[in-house]
Amino acid sequence: MAEAADIIASKASIDAFHKGAFYLKQPKENGHRAGIDAMLLASLVPEDPSGRLADLGAGAGAAGLAVAYRSKMDVTLFEKSPIMAQFARQSLQIEQNLSFAQRCRVVEADVELSGQARVAAGFEDNAFDHVIMNPPFNEAGDRKAPDELKAQAHAMSGDDLFEKWIKTAAAISKPQSQLSLIARPSSLQKILTACEGRFGGIEITSVLPTQNDNAIRFLLTGIKGSKARLVMRPNLIMHSDEDGARNYTAIADDLINGRAFLCRS
Amino acid sequence: MAEAADIIASKASIDAFHKGAFYLKQPKENGHRAGIDAMLLASLVPEDPSGRLADLGAGAGAAGLAVAYRSKMDVTLFEKSPIMAQFARQSLQIEQNLSFAQRCRVVEADVELSGQARVAAGFEDNAFDHVIMNPPFNEAGDRKAPDELKAQAHAMSGDDLFEKWIKTAAAISKPQSQLSLIARPSSLQKILTACEGRFGGIEITSVLPTQNDNAIRFLLTGIKGSKARLVMRPNLIMHSDEDGARNYTAIADDLINGRAFLCRS
Repeated sequence: MAEAADIIASKASIDAFHKGAFYLKQPKENGHRAGIDAMLLASLVPEDPSGRLADLGAGAGAAGLAVAYRSKMDVTLFEKSPIMAQFARQSLQIEQNLSFAQRCRVVEADVELSGQARVAAGFEDNAFDHVIMNPPFNEAGDRKAPDELKAQAHAMSGDDLFEKWIKTAAAISKPQSQLSLIARPSSLQKILTACEGRFGGIEITSVLPTQNDNAIRFLLTGIKGSKARLVMRPNLIMHSDEDGARNYTAIADDLINGRAFLCRS
Repeated sequence: MAEAADIIASKASIDAFHKGAFYLKQPKENGHRAGIDAMLLASLVPEDPSGRLADLGAGAGAAGLAVAYRSKMDVTLFEKSPIMAQFARQSLQIEQNLSFAQRCRVVEADVELSGQARVAAGFEDNAFDHVIMNPPFNEAGDRKAPDELKAQAHAMSGDDLFEKWIKTAAAISKPQSQLSLIARPSSLQKILTACEGRFGGIEITSVLPTQNDNAIRFLLTGIKGSKARLVMRPNLIMHSDEDGARNYTAIADDLINGRAFLCRS
């Protein structure tokens, strides 16, 4: 833990999100740094949500806090890594976050637990009105992550990662509550299979760098217990490629800055 | 069969496809009439294909013939319905189709057969360079199809329809050959699951009526035995909605008229 303390003390940055609406303390060079993915994930939570939100694998808390500051939700950040959980706790102590930090808490626990061990670790059954997740995505064959902390954040812990994460999401969700996640296209089949019998009314939005690119991510929402059919939404295009400037499109800029929400159809 | 003969004799039409490049005899009022779906399916077969093509659930043969006329492929149309198979055979006798009809044949057989029964019915193992399919899509809860022949063409024969169809596709495909299909978004999960371990390098294109609509279909290709990751391609937008005219977009018009092909990335 000497190393962990070292990272937290000297190699951290405090970064503004949503143009200063909230701040995040996170590792500067090592570990998983939050960014666009977390903001897109937060944009899946409707404009005026209420009740309790669970952020599974929260890291330093970017997505969860992006919902907390703009709503009245009680937010629980579940994070397995002691170092990242410590960053999340420190994020909650940042002065600019204090107005909503009292509605947020950090639970240091492994999303892949099941049964009594899961409940004992702090995952309450049928407790949450909305679950969000940005599951780890390094797959066999990916280039090795350059440092151990990042590897831990990104590594697939096995072929059944999505099954375990979505099983936990279903267990802690109230009936009719919404699951929202962001993932890579290569995980689509495993995620859909894990949702089967748990979350229905699945809606999928592909995220494309520009309008002619293949998707780099997809956004998915589902409703616990719903029998509604799967829906494929129009692409979300991140960058207009006019003039080669790679500016954000208006909708992408609004979504990642908390000014718009990717509503279900 | 009196009724069937009646349909064929008096209630059939002969329709031009690809602006007269080939013709199709098909039921006029009853049964499944081929259209845009079949043409989009055919557009998934690359520009200059060779070898043997299997069209599973071919109906009157629209998709298979759309490939046959523009290539040198040998095309086998597999169709379970005796009436629709008869339409396919009659389509091959239409004068305008004679230049390529000798490379086409109709096999009246059920795609859902397996094992020895499948082989005995005419599905040769490891024989085809490309398999195309537009599987039946009526699901429980859909409004009942208004006539029996159409119901037969559209009806899900059970939850494992896609498993059976894609299993047959894999059995009759040569290694590294391509599967191409068109289906409804609600079938996405079942189709991806059926492809697992059989067809990899899956590429998915959502088909949207206009750019702001949800998808009504998706196009999927995969390569037998490939381990490549799933790819989500940019949307295919069918209609430009300028002026409310609902004209086809340039790319959609090219694809459904055989002037362009939806290449794999």
